[in-house]
Amino acid sequence: MAEKEERVKLLGFWASPFSRRVEMALKLKGVPYEYLEQDIMNKSPLLLELNPMFKKVPVLVHKGKVLPESHLILEYIDQTWKNNPILPQDPYEKAMAFLWAKFVDEQVAPTGFRSVVRAEKGIEVAIKEARELIMYLEKEVTGKDFFGGKKIGFLDMVVGSMIPFCLARGWEGMGIDMIPEEKFPELNRWIKKLNEVEIVRECIPNREKQIEHMKKAAERNKLA
Amino acid sequence: MAEKEERVKLLGFWASPFSRRVEMALKLKGVPYEYLEQDIMNKSPLLLELNPMFKKVPVLVHKGKVLPESHLILEYIDQTWKNNPILPQDPYEKAMAFLWAKFVDEQVAPTGFRSVVRAEKGIEVAIKEARELIMYLEKEVTGKDFFGGKKIGFLDMVVGSMIPFCLARGWEGMGIDMIPEEKFPELNRWIKKLNEVEIVRECIPNREKQIEHMKKAAERNKLA
Repeated sequence: MAEKEERVKLLGFWASPFSRRVEMALKLKGVPYEYLEQDIMNKSPLLLELNPMFKKVPVLVHKGKVLPESHLILEYIDQTWKNNPILPQDPYEKAMAFLWAKFVDEQVAPTGFRSVVRAEKGIEVAIKEARELIMYLEKEVTGKDFFGGKKIGFLDMVVGSMIPFCLARGWEGMGIDMIPEEKFPELNRWIKKLNEVEIVRECIPNREKQIEHMKKAAERNKLA
Repeated sequence: MAEKEERVKLLGFWASPFSRRVEMALKLKGVPYEYLEQDIMNKSPLLLELNPMFKKVPVLVHKGKVLPESHLILEYIDQTWKNNPILPQDPYEKAMAFLWAKFVDEQVAPTGFRSVVRAEKGIEVAIKEARELIMYLEKEVTGKDFFGGKKIGFLDMVVGSMIPFCLARGWEGMGIDMIPEEKFPELNRWIKKLNEVEIVRECIPNREKQIEHMKKAAERNKLA
């Protein structure tokens, strides 16, 4: 019984970058877990019970402790299983990793739908604005193997789950190559390197299925 | 010269709860700092240079390192100056403190203007919805001296700067007692205790001045 209670559970949604990054972290640490796929359009009583304040995936359950929010879950995983560290030790570097993660999730992510699908200012302006934000990431990864340094870390999981394997596929579904090689050579190099990491590949949603999913989400956003 | 570079600088705005909580943390730790008041309606070249990604106060500058975002700044302060700890040591408790902070800043804070001033559903519904969120905090502080336990900590600074000494004054300006004693006895008890802490008192904006400021902000929101 004790063994069962100690097993990690993850409530997630297959197309959610927030869920995918948590799986990356669990796999990197080699933590076995039970994955519970959620229907985010029709929230389960379990999800509402475990995360009443935010009502969102992912939610991690470990030894009876319940934790939502991907940045917090990644840090909890890093502090609970010490092998293969994912966050910097230095307080300032760690804060900067969280700052970049916040930038990606709060500033870059909304450009996926808000600025492009509903582009009141015209689609060209929306693309230009999204690229201005992405350019910060291009500069940040310049001269580095990964955002985290020589190996993948917290920020690679956050940016990786959100941009190349989620937003870019949404843009692709709209016929937009948002991160062209000639404008973003460093990001493209990093995406290729990321694709070579086995635990990342294991966590990436199927490309065609995700493009289809993002097209439908964009359609819903247009109508909303 | 070295001494000058090591001195902490804080870019803030007097009525911002995000700035006020950083001052509380610096005062609790006894860290001397230079405070640089910013005009948030007319952003200074210094602010835009130091925080180009978010363009917001507060920004902490320490030994040439530049750090925006209040939750990250509070953790950085806690890790850099070890006396009077403000965050729990336990990884799960720490994650929960950040979760509550996120709840306050992302879910409760918008009820100040969005739900009440622009209440499309009617002001009574907006008040009810805001109180439903605040009730989570009432339950969380029940039976505790402070959110952080026996002494003030991270969450007391986050909730304290945001709710009693900012949002409640905005509501007061609209003639609404959002947190009445009979509905929220524990929160009211906590607010009284918080008022007794000297470093908190030193960081609270002038009540009349803030009510006036919040009234003007509400007026701008109505017109926007």
